[in-house]
Formats: sequence, structure tokens, C-alpha cells
Amino acid sequence: MDLETLRHSISHILAASVQELYPEAKLGIGPAIEDGFYYDFDIPEVALVPEDLIKIEEKMRELIKADLPFVREELSKTEALKLFESRGEKYKVELIKDIPEEKVSIYKTGNFIDLCRGPHVESTGKAGAFKLLTIAGAYWRGVETNPMLQRIYGTAFEKEDDLKTHITKLEEALKRDHRKLGRELDLFNIYHEEAGAGLVYYHPRGARLRLLIEDFLRREHIKRGYEFVIIPHIAKINLWNTSGHSSYYRENMYFMEIDKQEYVLKPMNCPGHILIYKSKLHSYRDLPIRYFELGTVYRYERSGVLHGLLRVRGFTQDDAHIFTTPERLEEEIARVIDFAFEMLTTFGFDYEVYLSTRPENSTGSEESWNHATEALKSALTKKGIEYAVDPGAGVFYGPKIDVKMKDALGRLWQGPTIQVDFNLPERFDLNYIAEDGKKRQPVMIHRVVLGSMERFLGALIEHYGGAFPVWIAPVQVILLPIADRHSVYAEKIKAELEGQELRVEIDNRREKINLKIREAQLQKIPYMLILGDKEEKEGTVAVRARGEGDLGVCDLPSFLEKIKKEIDSRS
Amino acid sequence: MDLETLRHSISHILAASVQELYPEAKLGIGPAIEDGFYYDFDIPEVALVPEDLIKIEEKMRELIKADLPFVREELSKTEALKLFESRGEKYKVELIKDIPEEKVSIYKTGNFIDLCRGPHVESTGKAGAFKLLTIAGAYWRGVETNPMLQRIYGTAFEKEDDLKTHITKLEEALKRDHRKLGRELDLFNIYHEEAGAGLVYYHPRGARLRLLIEDFLRREHIKRGYEFVIIPHIAKINLWNTSGHSSYYRENMYFMEIDKQEYVLKPMNCPGHILIYKSKLHSYRDLPIRYFELGTVYRYERSGVLHGLLRVRGFTQDDAHIFTTPERLEEEIARVIDFAFEMLTTFGFDYEVYLSTRPENSTGSEESWNHATEALKSALTKKGIEYAVDPGAGVFYGPKIDVKMKDALGRLWQGPTIQVDFNLPERFDLNYIAEDGKKRQPVMIHRVVLGSMERFLGALIEHYGGAFPVWIAPVQVILLPIADRHSVYAEKIKAELEGQELRVEIDNRREKINLKIREAQLQKIPYMLILGDKEEKEGTVAVRARGEGDLGVCDLPSFLEKIKKEIDSRS
Repeated sequence: MDLETLRHSISHILAASVQELYPEAKLGIGPAIEDGFYYDFDIPEVALVPEDLIKIEEKMRELIKADLPFVREELSKTEALKLFESRGEKYKVELIKDIPEEKVSIYKTGNFIDLCRGPHVESTGKAGAFKLLTIAGAYWRGVETNPMLQRIYGTAFEKEDDLKTHITKLEEALKRDHRKLGRELDLFNIYHEEAGAGLVYYHPRGARLRLLIEDFLRREHIKRGYEFVIIPHIAKINLWNTSGHSSYYRENMYFMEIDKQEYVLKPMNCPGHILIYKSKLHSYRDLPIRYFELGTVYRYERSGVLHGLLRVRGFTQDDAHIFTTPERLEEEIARVIDFAFEMLTTFGFDYEVYLSTRPENSTGSEESWNHATEALKSALTKKGIEYAVDPGAGVFYGPKIDVKMKDALGRLWQGPTIQVDFNLPERFDLNYIAEDGKKRQPVMIHRVVLGSMERFLGALIEHYGGAFPVWIAPVQVILLPIADRHSVYAEKIKAELEGQELRVEIDNRREKINLKIREAQLQKIPYMLILGDKEEKEGTVAVRARGEGDLGVCDLPSFLEKIKKEIDSRS
Repeated sequence: MDLETLRHSISHILAASVQELYPEAKLGIGPAIEDGFYYDFDIPEVALVPEDLIKIEEKMRELIKADLPFVREELSKTEALKLFESRGEKYKVELIKDIPEEKVSIYKTGNFIDLCRGPHVESTGKAGAFKLLTIAGAYWRGVETNPMLQRIYGTAFEKEDDLKTHITKLEEALKRDHRKLGRELDLFNIYHEEAGAGLVYYHPRGARLRLLIEDFLRREHIKRGYEFVIIPHIAKINLWNTSGHSSYYRENMYFMEIDKQEYVLKPMNCPGHILIYKSKLHSYRDLPIRYFELGTVYRYERSGVLHGLLRVRGFTQDDAHIFTTPERLEEEIARVIDFAFEMLTTFGFDYEVYLSTRPENSTGSEESWNHATEALKSALTKKGIEYAVDPGAGVFYGPKIDVKMKDALGRLWQGPTIQVDFNLPERFDLNYIAEDGKKRQPVMIHRVVLGSMERFLGALIEHYGGAFPVWIAPVQVILLPIADRHSVYAEKIKAELEGQELRVEIDNRREKINLKIREAQLQKIPYMLILGDKEEKEGTVAVRARGEGDLGVCDLPSFLEKIKKEIDSRS
């Protein structure tokens, strides 16, 4: 059966139940969505709470048991307006007025009537397994000046088992929510009120995690022949006029004035890297030139769409710009693909690949577009990589490859992108001296491997549920002395482990050892070393591993060997 | 003899000579300055060029040989006005009008007359050894809307030998100018026209140098118990209202608007670090807490004062904020002093120490000021460190220690600062739970160790004259294949060296080996490995060291041992 029809039918049953329980409730809209459905209500004087959902679910089950048919009727717009006006359904009236056709359809289930295109299941008894999930506020038609309605979200499946699997997955996702874990593991915070929305402050453990990943990334870039550059966060408007950003990207940019001139807080790193490329003459023999920077950029997003680390106003891209001859383009793309996949695999992500082709509004010759698109396709094909084509989804200056990262729960996250660009080399009049001594224009590749550090960390936190592998765990080992008298031994062990560049903490509080273990486990620290009389006397440590429990007693060199092996293999 | 008197007398001789050579020349001012003197002239229709200085010097020597007396006279302001008006000295007339006293003094030397307080040497024959140095433009009275005058700089000493020593030092300083070397070694650039003044773009070699130093700094901070944090570059005005910056620091801040609220491009990192401190409860046992960040800040400076890397509008501080109990304050200061000195020594700098005490306009109780000042003094004294007191030069919120770095030429550069602050903890209502269970206010230490990365790199470039020690050299080894056929061997050596994490380049151009050596030397690369038939056959390398020349042939392991030893010892 069609899941959308089923979910849309359940949303009618939801609305019918709400109106039975709250006769004053006026209907907004109630569509099926990815993974479920919702319905919006205007219920004067009532603020729904989670307990109400149980009551509503009971009423819904009654209606399902009654097996009421979904009855379709066609009315003229005039009749429909009269009908919904008589029922006080002001939002439906508004919707009907906007419908261009002369006839509209309604669906009846018992006393419930809804303006609806359909289709629906035959009767409420065929509506499958459902569950209501949450209540949220939503402006009528999404417009902030309209009344705020109450939205009830739910999900539904044909079979009870599928519903259960989905609910388990939702619960798991909730446990892994990076905002929740960010707080619990003290990784980061966003000080909306004091300092502004969408701006991330990394607390010590979060900063350590980020810097560990950045250091790793830097080393990987060096290995692959990238050179580092560093550019300022502000630049004169001139630069953005040349790049074109000041016209087509204006509403996402932040402006300021210095010495009566307009300056921009950089939303992208490309123009800065281009200035450096332009600062000297390049021969075809120097190309490809690959400039890399962990570049922090700022882009305006409406406050309503901001979301934890995933949608922010300031973020750091692992950004590179490759300047290449057209002849080397495909080879460079292939190298970037390998690089990107290797990185995702290192962090345990699977992935899906999309190729975005020329959009309607775009710049550049047919020939350049074909060359660039073929280079992307050919690089993918030669590697035997399956990909989906997203027609017309390229950027206006060139086609691109988008890689989505698939996490432990099978969810997709925006990851690496590889964009070919022949527009900026044109606008900035870039060139190199070709083998024949003539000036030629290089092609640029814009690419990120992890994307933005913020979004990647958000995905990473949820992917691992905060239980990071040892090599990037902010704290790798926590020492738990059983009593005060074991503190000195703990300090000695700490010094030895830190001498091996391990990240170590001591829990020196006067608390029971079981509580210390429990809290270390909640903090998802990979290794706990418990230190008591016996360990101190024998010069050993009692090892507990996150998730594995007690691993027994061993001497420090054995423990070091074990943990170092794990770190080196990044497992 | 008084060097100032001598130099001021020479400046009169300079002015007298200029007026003999250019009778139309009108006088600006001509003071003695640190290291020399200058005189400003308005010479209609004449743009002085360096060759003119030789001519002027000759004339000056004539006047010195003539041994003309410096004759002082006192005039009433009216008489003086008449005298200088009659000579067409409009700038002197302007100066006289601004003198509050009734009498003014003038000095005569031959036909030359100057408005002057004196004193001077007896006669031109006693004026010592001098040299004219440069010509520069300077607005009358430093005001940009006034006429632009021509300024001639010179220097003078009692003895010819001292002059020679000084000139040699100046020439050396000129060779080491970080702007010149920055260009020659392709380390950085400032794209005034395209992207804005005072904003530094690090080219690959400069970025590598900076990142190497930053990585080293990070490791040193970890060793000393600092935790890393990362904060955004913009924040709501609220934060700066609380900190007080929006009132007393306003003219140095950059503003922008987001969602109709005022935001600031951060000029300092402290308020952000404070937000993180405030995000949870702290016990006295957690203190001191040390937050470190390589934090990029932006501060407005007038375009006229911008200077290479030394005076910029955006820079990255190696910034830390230490939150401590008042009891631990002195100990923490002592730790920071040790840290700072160790870093300066690592980079080969000597240093001088200054203690800045309470200024007139300041905040906080006498008791806090005394406690903080005593803590700084005591930490210095216990270490047996000599220091000069700079009375009243503290910041308004607390006293500080300033360390000046002394470079290879004996010049002083702004280096580490350690500031004690009890104002921000008060303003942000910071606290910790003391041993008695009560809330107490921590003291903050603001400290930088290298200062700003920009200024430090500027100093470092001049200190080493671009010949960086191997451990931070952007390129440590350059491979010079003698002919094309040795390129494969060069690639093999490169791979082996890079496998040992060395920074290696190959000069593969079809140029004579002597030219390659000369250019590598100009690039100040520590080691050149020359690769020819013999080396390839025997699997060896012919080593040349920067400054030392030919070190003979050896196998790769021996070379590796040598260079690694140098890197590990940071020598």
C-alpha cells in the first residue's frame, strides 16, 4: 500500500479526534511528510501537553475500530465556502479562496469534514499502525506575522513491526541528538541571548575534539600536496564586486564600514585564495596549485532555520581551491574523490554520491560545461562509483559532485562537495604560462572534504552517539583512585600516560568508586583505570573499557601497547 | 657630550644648507629624535631625490668647516613675528603665534635664523660626525589636510666610529626589513588596494611558518595545563556592553547589523572566554582554569600608522585567560613568567621586563590594586628578575608586566604581557565556590606569550634576517638535481625525507647548478642536497648548508641524523 495515502488518512483521523475532544479546535493543514504526518490546529484557550497525545491516540483508536468510510464529495467553490464558513473553519475558507479551479473536493469521516484532494484509504479500519510523537508551534502558512497554531506530529506504517522499528530508531536518534550530547559531554554551547544566535562556542572538550580532527586533516592535506594559506576575515567590497558575490549573494553577507569604505565579513574563502594565486606568475609546470585553509566564514541565515551545529551563522570549512590546467582537471577530480572517500571511511561513514548538472540560470559556454561535467562523470565512472544525477542542481558557475555521508542510523548528512568553476578564473583574469609560452586560463576546483567543521562535528556526535573512537576522544583515559591515599599513585600514572601524549584526567573526588565509574561511562570516556591498594603495590592498573566493562588488571606497558594500537589504527 | 644637543645642532646645519641650495625653501620643524634628527621643508617646485642628499651633505661639511658660532637671541613675540614674516617663513609664524610666553628665542648661524629653544653646541665645527639617510613626505603638524612637506632624516654622533657602527646597524636592519623579506621569501602580502589595508594574507611559506609556530605553542600550552577553547569572531553588542568595551573602546571596534541588532567584530577574546567560564559552576578545586585560544581579533587603526606585520588591523593573539583564586594569583603569575621567558629563549630573543602600575583613571579598590601589584612584584623578585617600573602605565583595570624582546640587532619589540584583572570578574559577576562553601570572585589574568602572531613573525623575520632555524624553516631541504636525468633520484630522496616529516622541495628547472645554489641561498633554505651521477650511483647526497657552504658527501641516514638532531634541539 501507498504509505503517503495511509499517513494522510491517519492525519484525518487525528483531526477528527482532536475536534471530538476539543470542539472549539479549528483546522489548519494536515499533510503526510517524510517519515510520518502532522496536523495543525487552532484551539482557543488550550495549550496541548504531551499527556494529551495519549488521550487523542485513544480517541483515534476508537475511530479506527468503528471502521468509518472515507467519503469523497465534489462541491462548487461557493458551496464549499458556505459549508466551511458554517463550521467556523476560517483557515479552510482562506485556502478555498486561493484555489483556482471551480470545483473542490471534500472528505467525510463520520462527523468530520476536511477540504482535501485525497486519495485516502477505504475506511478508518484500514489505516494501519500509528503513533503520535510531538507537539510544536507553527505559524499559519509559515508566516511569522500569522497566528501560531499547534502542530501534532505522528508517524504511521502498514505493519506494527515497521512502526516499532521506526520508533526505536527515533528514540535512538533522540538519544544521539548532538545538541543534547553537546550539553551532556560539555562540548560546545550557543549563547543565543548573550552573544547571538547561530554562533558556536567550543568548550574545552569540544575544542580538543575539533583541533584533533583539524590536525589530522592538515597532515592528510600535506601528504596530498596541498599548501596552506591564511587569509583575513574581512575584505573590501571591491573583492566581492569582482567575484560577483556582492550582487548575487548579498542577502547572506554581513557588511561593515572602515574609513568610509564598505567591507564584508567573508562568506567564502575563494576570492582571498585567488588574490594569492594572482600574486605571482605561474607556469603550467607549477600547476596544479592546491591552496588549503581551515577558513572560518560567516553567512546570514534566518534565525528560524538555525539548528545546533547543523545550521549556523559562522562555520569553518576545510576549504581548498585547486588551480589546474584543463588537461589535468579530471585527474585532480579523481584525487579529490579518493581523498574524500578515505576521510569519510576513517570516521566510519558510508556515503552516497550525486552529480549536479547545469541549471537554467548559469554562466559559461556549452563547451566548458560539457568539459567539466564529463570530467566529473568520467572520474566517477573510472573508479566504478555509482552515482545519481541531480539534473540542473549545479551551481550557476559549474557542475559539482555532492557526497552525502550515511551515519550509523542510516541517515544522510551533507558531506564533501567538489565543484568545477570556470567563472571566477574569468572574472579575476587568472592565467598561467602554457607549454607554448602563451597565457591560458586555469580551471578552479572548489572542494571541501568534511564540509564545515560545525556540521561535520554535529554529524559525528550523532554518528558515534558521543562515544568517540579513542584516537579522537577528548579524554581517552580517566584515572579513578579508590580512596584519597591513591591520589599520588594516580598522579604518577597520569604523568606517564601524558608523557606518551595521551589525554588523561583524574577523578579525585571523595566519591564511591561505583559512582565514579558510572559518571565516566556517561561521559563516554573510552578507558577507566581503577587504582587501589593492590594496583599501587603491584604497580598495575585495573582496566575498564567503555561498553566492554572490566578487562582485568595489567601493567602499564601492556595497557599502553593496547591503547596505542587502537589509536594508530584509528579504530 | 649631550647627543640630543649635538643632533639638534646638526639639524640647524642641515636647514641652513638646504636654504643655501634652495633659497625658496621654507622651514618646518627640525627636532632631534631617537637615533638621529630630521628637518621638514616646503620647497616649491622641487622634489628631492636621494642624490640631492650628497649635495646637501657637502654643503653641510662646508658650514662645519667654517666653524660658525650658534648665536642665541631673545625677541619679543612681535619682533619675532616681524622677523620671520619678512623672511617668508609662514610655518614659523604659525608656531610663534601658538607660543604662550611673551619672549621667544632664536638661533643664528651665519645667514641662517631659526626659531629655537636651544641649547646648541658652541659652533658648527663642534657638531660631530653625521650622515643624511632618507627623504620622506610628512604633513605639516602631522595633519592630513595640511600641506605635505619634505622631511630629511639623518643621524649624528660625537665620534666617526660610533656613526659607522650605527650606519652598519641601519644597513643591516634595512636588509632584514620584514616587509622586504616577506616579499623576497614570498611569506605574506597585504593587498591594500584590492582587499584593504592592514589585513595580512599568508602565502604558503608564511602560513607554514606560522602554523609550525602555532603547533609548537599549542603543545607547550597543553604541557602547562591550559585547555583550548574556540569562539566566534562576532558577538552581540550586549556582551561588549557588559565588558565595557562598547563605551571605552568604541573607536577601535568594527560594527555590523544582524536581524536589526548591533554586532561587533571581536577586538578581544576575553568576553567570549568568560561566557565559557560562566557556563558552569566551578569549585576552588577546579581553579586555576586556563583557557587558551589562538584568537583572531580586529581593531581599527588609522591607515597612516599601519606598518607591515607590526601594526595591522587584524591579528591573531596567543591569548589565554586564567581564572584563579586570589591566593593562587602569585603562583600563576610566576608560571606565566617562566612560560614566557622559555618561549622567548627558544626563539633566540633576549628580553627586558617592565612593571606598569596604577594609572590615574582606574577602577577597583586600593586593596585589589595593592594585592595585584604585590603579586606581580613578588613573582619577579623571587625569580631574581630585574625590572623597571613604569609608573601609572597599567591598564585601567589592573597592573601588568610587559616583556620587551631584544633581537639580534639589540632592538626592542613588544612581547609577552601579563595583566591582572579584577574588573571583568566583577562586571560579569564571575564566581567559584570556595572551601567554606561560599561564593567568591576569581581574579583573571590576561596574558599573551608571543603577543600577536603577526607582530611576532615580523620581529622573528627581522631577528633571523629570514634565515630561520631548521625547526621552523618553511622549506628545510632543497634538492638540486644537476641534470634532468637526476630527477628520478631526487624524487626518491624527496619521498624518503618527507616520510620523515621533513619539508622538502626540488628545483627541477633546467638551470646551471650554480644558479640553483645561489637562488636557494637567497631563499635562505637551511640545506641544499646536490644530486649528480656520483651521488645517484653511490646512493649518497652532497650537502651544502646555508652560511656554511659545502659539507661534503654523505649517505642519507647520516644526513637525516644530523638534521633531526638540529630540529629536536631547536637550534
